[in-house]
Amino acid sequence: MISVGIVGGTGYTGVELLRLLLRHPQVTVRVLTSRTEAGKRVSEMFPSLRGHTDLEFSDLNEDLLKQCDVVFFATPHGVAMKHAKVLVESGVKVIDLAADFRLQNLEQFEKWYGLQHECPDVLKSSVYGLPELNREKIKTAQVVGNPGCYPTTVQLGLAPLLQADVALIKPSSIIVDAKSGVSGAGRKASLGMIYTENADNFKAYGVAGHRHHPEIVEALENISGQTGVFDQLLFVPHLVPMIRGMLSTIYVELTDEGANSDLQSLYEVYYAHERFVDVMPANSSPETRSVRGSNELRIALYKPQPNKLIILSVQDNLVKGAAGQAVQNMNLMFNFDEATGLDGIGLLP
Amino acid sequence: MISVGIVGGTGYTGVELLRLLLRHPQVTVRVLTSRTEAGKRVSEMFPSLRGHTDLEFSDLNEDLLKQCDVVFFATPHGVAMKHAKVLVESGVKVIDLAADFRLQNLEQFEKWYGLQHECPDVLKSSVYGLPELNREKIKTAQVVGNPGCYPTTVQLGLAPLLQADVALIKPSSIIVDAKSGVSGAGRKASLGMIYTENADNFKAYGVAGHRHHPEIVEALENISGQTGVFDQLLFVPHLVPMIRGMLSTIYVELTDEGANSDLQSLYEVYYAHERFVDVMPANSSPETRSVRGSNELRIALYKPQPNKLIILSVQDNLVKGAAGQAVQNMNLMFNFDEATGLDGIGLLP
Amino acid sequence: MISVGIVGGTGYTGVELLRLLLRHPQVTVRVLTSRTEAGKRVSEMFPSLRGHTDLEFSDLNEDLLKQCDVVFFATPHGVAMKHAKVLVESGVKVIDLAADFRLQNLEQFEKWYGLQHECPDVLKSSVYGLPELNREKIKTAQVVGNPGCYPTTVQLGLAPLLQADVALIKPSSIIVDAKSGVSGAGRKASLGMIYTENADNFKAYGVAGHRHHPEIVEALENISGQTGVFDQLLFVPHLVPMIRGMLSTIYVELTDEGANSDLQSLYEVYYAHERFVDVMPANSSPETRSVRGSNELRIALYKPQPNKLIILSVQDNLVKGAAGQAVQNMNLMFNFDEATGLDGIGLLP
Amino acid sequence: MISVGIVGGTGYTGVELLRLLLRHPQVTVRVLTSRTEAGKRVSEMFPSLRGHTDLEFSDLNEDLLKQCDVVFFATPHGVAMKHAKVLVESGVKVIDLAADFRLQNLEQFEKWYGLQHECPDVLKSSVYGLPELNREKIKTAQVVGNPGCYPTTVQLGLAPLLQADVALIKPSSIIVDAKSGVSGAGRKASLGMIYTENADNFKAYGVAGHRHHPEIVEALENISGQTGVFDQLLFVPHLVPMIRGMLSTIYVELTDEGANSDLQSLYEVYYAHERFVDVMPANSSPETRSVRGSNELRIALYKPQPNKLIILSVQDNLVKGAAGQAVQNMNLMFNFDEATGLDGIGLLP
Repeated sequence: MISVGIVGGTGYTGVELLRLLLRHPQVTVRVLTSRTEAGKRVSEMFPSLRGHTDLEFSDLNEDLLKQCDVVFFATPHGVAMKHAKVLVESGVKVIDLAADFRLQNLEQFEKWYGLQHECPDVLKSSVYGLPELNREKIKTAQVVGNPGCYPTTVQLGLAPLLQADVALIKPSSIIVDAKSGVSGAGRKASLGMIYTENADNFKAYGVAGHRHHPEIVEALENISGQTGVFDQLLFVPHLVPMIRGMLSTIYVELTDEGANSDLQSLYEVYYAHERFVDVMPANSSPETRSVRGSNELRIALYKPQPNKLIILSVQDNLVKGAAGQAVQNMNLMFNFDEATGLDGIGLLP
Repeated sequence: MISVGIVGGTGYTGVELLRLLLRHPQVTVRVLTSRTEAGKRVSEMFPSLRGHTDLEFSDLNEDLLKQCDVVFFATPHGVAMKHAKVLVESGVKVIDLAADFRLQNLEQFEKWYGLQHECPDVLKSSVYGLPELNREKIKTAQVVGNPGCYPTTVQLGLAPLLQADVALIKPSSIIVDAKSGVSGAGRKASLGMIYTENADNFKAYGVAGHRHHPEIVEALENISGQTGVFDQLLFVPHLVPMIRGMLSTIYVELTDEGANSDLQSLYEVYYAHERFVDVMPANSSPETRSVRGSNELRIALYKPQPNKLIILSVQDNLVKGAAGQAVQNMNLMFNFDEATGLDGIGLLP
Repeated sequence: MISVGIVGGTGYTGVELLRLLLRHPQVTVRVLTSRTEAGKRVSEMFPSLRGHTDLEFSDLNEDLLKQCDVVFFATPHGVAMKHAKVLVESGVKVIDLAADFRLQNLEQFEKWYGLQHECPDVLKSSVYGLPELNREKIKTAQVVGNPGCYPTTVQLGLAPLLQADVALIKPSSIIVDAKSGVSGAGRKASLGMIYTENADNFKAYGVAGHRHHPEIVEALENISGQTGVFDQLLFVPHLVPMIRGMLSTIYVELTDEGANSDLQSLYEVYYAHERFVDVMPANSSPETRSVRGSNELRIALYKPQPNKLIILSVQDNLVKGAAGQAVQNMNLMFNFDEATGLDGIGLLP
Repeated sequence: MISVGIVGGTGYTGVELLRLLLRHPQVTVRVLTSRTEAGKRVSEMFPSLRGHTDLEFSDLNEDLLKQCDVVFFATPHGVAMKHAKVLVESGVKVIDLAADFRLQNLEQFEKWYGLQHECPDVLKSSVYGLPELNREKIKTAQVVGNPGCYPTTVQLGLAPLLQADVALIKPSSIIVDAKSGVSGAGRKASLGMIYTENADNFKAYGVAGHRHHPEIVEALENISGQTGVFDQLLFVPHLVPMIRGMLSTIYVELTDEGANSDLQSLYEVYYAHERFVDVMPANSSPETRSVRGSNELRIALYKPQPNKLIILSVQDNLVKGAAGQAVQNMNLMFNFDEATGLDGIGLLP
């Protein structure tokens, strides 16, 4: 039994962490902090938690956090980096669901997040928390940067191609046309997020630049071991009038070797032992609702032209794209079974 | 051709007024004001207006407004009462879509809106703008208080019963179980209004007290000519995850005379010449989408017990419940055909 | 470990049963039948189940079912009554999620469902499966009729009043204004159910008569021990554009004794030990999303007039209103802890 | 004043035609047919039409249709081609909203629609009804094939590039990632279309092949005057949980000449005099709701890389993508002002 702290429990990744951790058999949530809601019960803010916990928000107090075994930061960008060092020095493990430990490239971090990084040394020793690609490092990590939601769909969607022995695709051809439910934007009082501005509506956003773009590029470079080749990658996110769910439609051009390979098999073999990645049969159409509330990511491949591949990659942005993946990382860091507390079946309909 | 000013064009009643007035053949919109957006084109805020108008927001300037024939206030409560007197004295007609001229009872106004009324004399001479019940007075009014959305459904739903020669119902028995789309709450950056808090969700709100309750009571007293008998009326609004639309389910107990009357005929005769009120055949189920974007209100009656009547009353809260009714009032005040600019057919699906 | 059969697994109550039972630690689902899909994997129909079960649909075969400890019927009305006798005689317990064992009044059953009952003797010994009201009988039942979704909200919403020592309410005054998500209508290819006919729309339906009306009346008679007094009850269901969720707004007139009682306390005491009924604090607004996917029912009380009470009662129609309640019944019938497999926290947002 | 017939008025393109034509000042709708609903008032099926028309469905009777000036076919594919010849020979103009007169390539038509074409001669003389690209031919056409919804967004999105004097793009690079509201699938009782299968869900469909693909290719060949060069085009449609609206995200690689051109200007000049095509300023994000119910198509351009262009193209699939474009064609064919009856402003919110 480990004791857990959550910093910033008033957003959707916070309540989703609680939904998962309150049912995790090896975890006790000890501390829950909020800048603005100290003294309030979390179940007053999130009525789904009524009857499941008496936890109250407290002010962010490092002394309290130091008594935890692991602390999740479900905060805006820039908070975790203020506290990570102290916690690590006290032997507390840290999992940041924001961006402070996602990008190793400090210049990119500062450019896209408008923040000076406050603990570059901790960043350097931190691990990028995509378990399927980074499992061994995560197991021994002190600090894990939980991936962004879009980057998770793209990396798992492309990894088998990028880690093959031969060049199967032309890296400069990659186009990611991504679609997300509204919860991806968090829980904020903003005019652009109100119901009447989003329901029965569809649009692209961030076409001129989105923070997940540099994360995708850095991650693909790490996966493939090649730098500079993904600079032409296009990434266009869209907003879908739904609560949860994310689908990336990824277009790639194949090399001759790729065109002649059995890519369906490649994916099936690559993910054969992964419990949260499902390679669907050819011609499947993964739907976001098939993973609503679950930690799964489903993939389907199409080859409409001999030298072109389409990869559909789908997840719940709040689970595999955020809180679920964070719990999966925690399980690895504490040597629990990786799926502990994550075996819920998606809610359909 | 009259010239029109709109004060407060950044909310949903503002853009809805523009949608209707820009197509009204006898109207030019001359002035459009906003506290915060002066200098900006309204089509930058509401892209549906691109190509239909070059209007820019200006600061609220009484001198400009005085040059209009009529000024609509699509503002928060308490704005129209600051300017109505000056405008009226300059011969400008005023239609307020907020609550400043809805309640004659000043005590109630101050209790529910937390505001001291600033022009009680203008209020006294103003007219409550429900055309089907108040047509002749509206024609000569200088100032019209446009009804609230819920009160419109209730008044038109009950008027034939309350204006009958004999007592058909027991006034103390009235229960209004009302349901509204989210646009009824306006266009505000508030946490409770964001997409992810409202989609796939249903709840009651304001059960302990809602501002439209005193308006309903005062209005029913005026319609029936009886005071004090509606004090037991129950009014419970609910929030429906849809953009537009409002349905009130009204329950009343019938007197013996009511039980023995042909109420379906009563309604059909009462509204026979109304172009915007549709009494549907017995056993019909009026749907909000049947009036999406149109100025119609549809009514259906059920008599599940000999002495109990259920009235279903449905409208688009932004049209018949707000901007459309305001234009209908304007048409009456300027002696235009009452339906001018309001003949659009609802958008289905 | 008991072995379970599910007859009719192609509807929403079927997939919801599977979602719950596949995670139930004391259950193995052995048989899953479908008239039309025999030989198909259930995960091909419901992709949320991919990776969680290899179950295939089989034809309805009584010999197979007889090897189960309990059989759930997630079928249309009229199927369970054809098989219940044989199964019971083989020692198999039966839980019917359709209406075959809900109404003891055969006349009403035949009137509302258009079916002649085929095993009235089994019906007579069957138990109405509302655990909070009927727990002891359910424990020893061979056949349980799982309540309708609307009736569950109404019974739990009214039980404390009806089982009080003194008459707290006027039974003839009860009005149930109920609202349901679309999944309540099941999974059927029907024009009235398609997305474009229901999204951004709200309507009443079944106002002239709904099958749950006689069930509500019979149940309230049983709870109160009084017959004939609920004949004036009004029940008006409405359709909400959301997937899951049900809210009943219940209006009752209080007797003088009721008006002078502390009803909030009455409810809190009555449900103090119930794990799935949550009496919220005064002035709360229960939201359907607070129970999305969970087996809870939440209640809030309002007393807007000294002699009038409003009860808000909210649940997930597919869980506490159907599959979850069925599992709760199964737990009682097999002497498991009542909450086994039902401790999931609602999915919010 | 011309007299109009509509064959097949029970679908969404049918009711949308009626919404527009009943308000068209130079048109009388004389005939409305349905295989299944003869004798029924159309307002019973579509309650939005109550009070606006007394039209009843009649059986499809060629003698009645011959008395019209123009007949719209809002039918399944394969109906118009059975009647076009007779009507044309009687001097009646025909506008088909299905696919019978979209593809000149008979082989493709038969392959994708599974139908033998019944009047190839009429097809040959028919005109593809995209007014912005084909205006002069439409003016004198007897038979117009109204374009598919997706192809409209793609053609108007690419035409300025394809009709330039020099080669601006690499045709083989075109990728169309398209998203549509559910009404694009029509009004059919099908399991896949019900509310609970589509709400809060997102998926791709028809990835392995969609009927609009060959139409897009043939149309782009016609626009560019080049054959064979679009065979590698990728087209992936997705289903958005909304009623109306369509957005195509189009990716193209630019030639050196394209990379060095001012494409924003090119588009602005190309569409400068088009009343229904809006080229938005650079960095705009066209939203589907900005054209809800209106006949407009809005375009925005992004150039994320020197040699890559992204085109966002948005419309209401039932208006510019179907019924509105059909009325626009009719206006041209009868020498009315092209925008007559089509000046409605989009419904926002």
